[in-house]
Amino acid sequence: MTYCVAIKLRDGLLFASDTRTNAGVDHVATFGKMRQLAEPGRIRLVLLSSGNLATSQSVASLLELGVRGGDPATNILAVDSLYDAAVRLGATLREVIARDARPDEGTDFSSHFLLGGQVAGEAPRLFHVYPQGNFIEATRDTPYFQIGEAKYGKPILDRVLDYDTPRDEAIKCTLISFDSTMRSNLSVGAPLDLFWHPRDDFSAREPTRLAEHDPYLAGLREQWGRGLRQAFATLPEPDWLAD
Amino acid sequence: MTYCVAIKLRDGLLFASDTRTNAGVDHVATFGKMRQLAEPGRIRLVLLSSGNLATSQSVASLLELGVRGGDPATNILAVDSLYDAAVRLGATLREVIARDARPDEGTDFSSHFLLGGQVAGEAPRLFHVYPQGNFIEATRDTPYFQIGEAKYGKPILDRVLDYDTPRDEAIKCTLISFDSTMRSNLSVGAPLDLFWHPRDDFSAREPTRLAEHDPYLAGLREQWGRGLRQAFATLPEPDWLAD
Repeated sequence: MTYCVAIKLRDGLLFASDTRTNAGVDHVATFGKMRQLAEPGRIRLVLLSSGNLATSQSVASLLELGVRGGDPATNILAVDSLYDAAVRLGATLREVIARDARPDEGTDFSSHFLLGGQVAGEAPRLFHVYPQGNFIEATRDTPYFQIGEAKYGKPILDRVLDYDTPRDEAIKCTLISFDSTMRSNLSVGAPLDLFWHPRDDFSAREPTRLAEHDPYLAGLREQWGRGLRQAFATLPEPDWLAD
Repeated sequence: MTYCVAIKLRDGLLFASDTRTNAGVDHVATFGKMRQLAEPGRIRLVLLSSGNLATSQSVASLLELGVRGGDPATNILAVDSLYDAAVRLGATLREVIARDARPDEGTDFSSHFLLGGQVAGEAPRLFHVYPQGNFIEATRDTPYFQIGEAKYGKPILDRVLDYDTPRDEAIKCTLISFDSTMRSNLSVGAPLDLFWHPRDDFSAREPTRLAEHDPYLAGLREQWGRGLRQAFATLPEPDWLAD
């Protein structure tokens, strides 16, 4: 399984993903699910993927070949709008699924992608690209997307996040969301990859990797547990219930 | 959809359920999912159900007919152990599914039940009864079960609950878990039914119904939102991330 979140904030885009994949509980491996394609100074694309690993790796390989090949028709970086990048990603995804899938077999070949980033001259944008190749875009009303094992970590995002949330609040909220998911589902696991794209920044940047026993994560978990217990202590007692 | 939780605590058993059912978003109705069968002074059974409403209503009707009929072989209250009640519930569930289901149709006829309660002379016990008719029992290590739309509300239970949690803490935690689920999934909705079985209590008792705009629930939600924001404010800043 997988858990990925991407958030469109006023100040930029935040991306986070786990690194665990599994085909059955006895076949667990570590694969990054965050990829960056960029041309410093002009465009940055960040991709997160969930679902069939063969499909999402093939899509990424084909996109990278397209960038190296330099033909503008197949180069996802040769676009003037993130919208066109989403179209190309969707077409490549559909192409790989059509190539590999056998409709009469039970295997699920589908993958989902979150694609976010910015082209110089446009605001940062964020898309959820479906296995069918079409996509939806995040807005101020719905500023985040999740793919993979999304339910455990959704309530904390719904309670805390909006478009105006400052970057560091969003990072804390996202890491708590991952912690909740990892506690409830063994198939989502550390290390975590985190990337911040500040609005209008086209410098070369690498994601941050947080290991399972990263001291910041450990402190966050402990402090969050303490904070929750304090929040509980202040809740009104259910004195309407007889003993 | 449905969300039900039952918890085995040192002091007794706590049950909670929502009341929304739906067959498509344009066919939403209110049905209680909590039922009690009891013989004051000797035995109390509380049932929570999720899944196919026709199946769970039929199972409840057959159990009630069995109690009225008075034949000990089909009377779920004529047992000396909760274990035997779980066996009878499982058999009735299997019987209804076998009667109604047509394997070649796509409809899912399955239901899940949580069965908890106490027979005089035994400790309180709690079971999760599967559509196959078999069941598992809650223990000190795993003191709670959920059925229905369980994922959104699981992290808060995992962080707060254990066998030694006092009743009122467990009630608050359960209501927060329901609030998280109702925010994230429209098919789970108020009013909520709540029942507390104190260990060794066999008096007649009714569940408490909390309406959507119940002032206690509203206060709990508001205070919890405030508590979470305070908990967030105390979390360490991610100062390892460059601007």
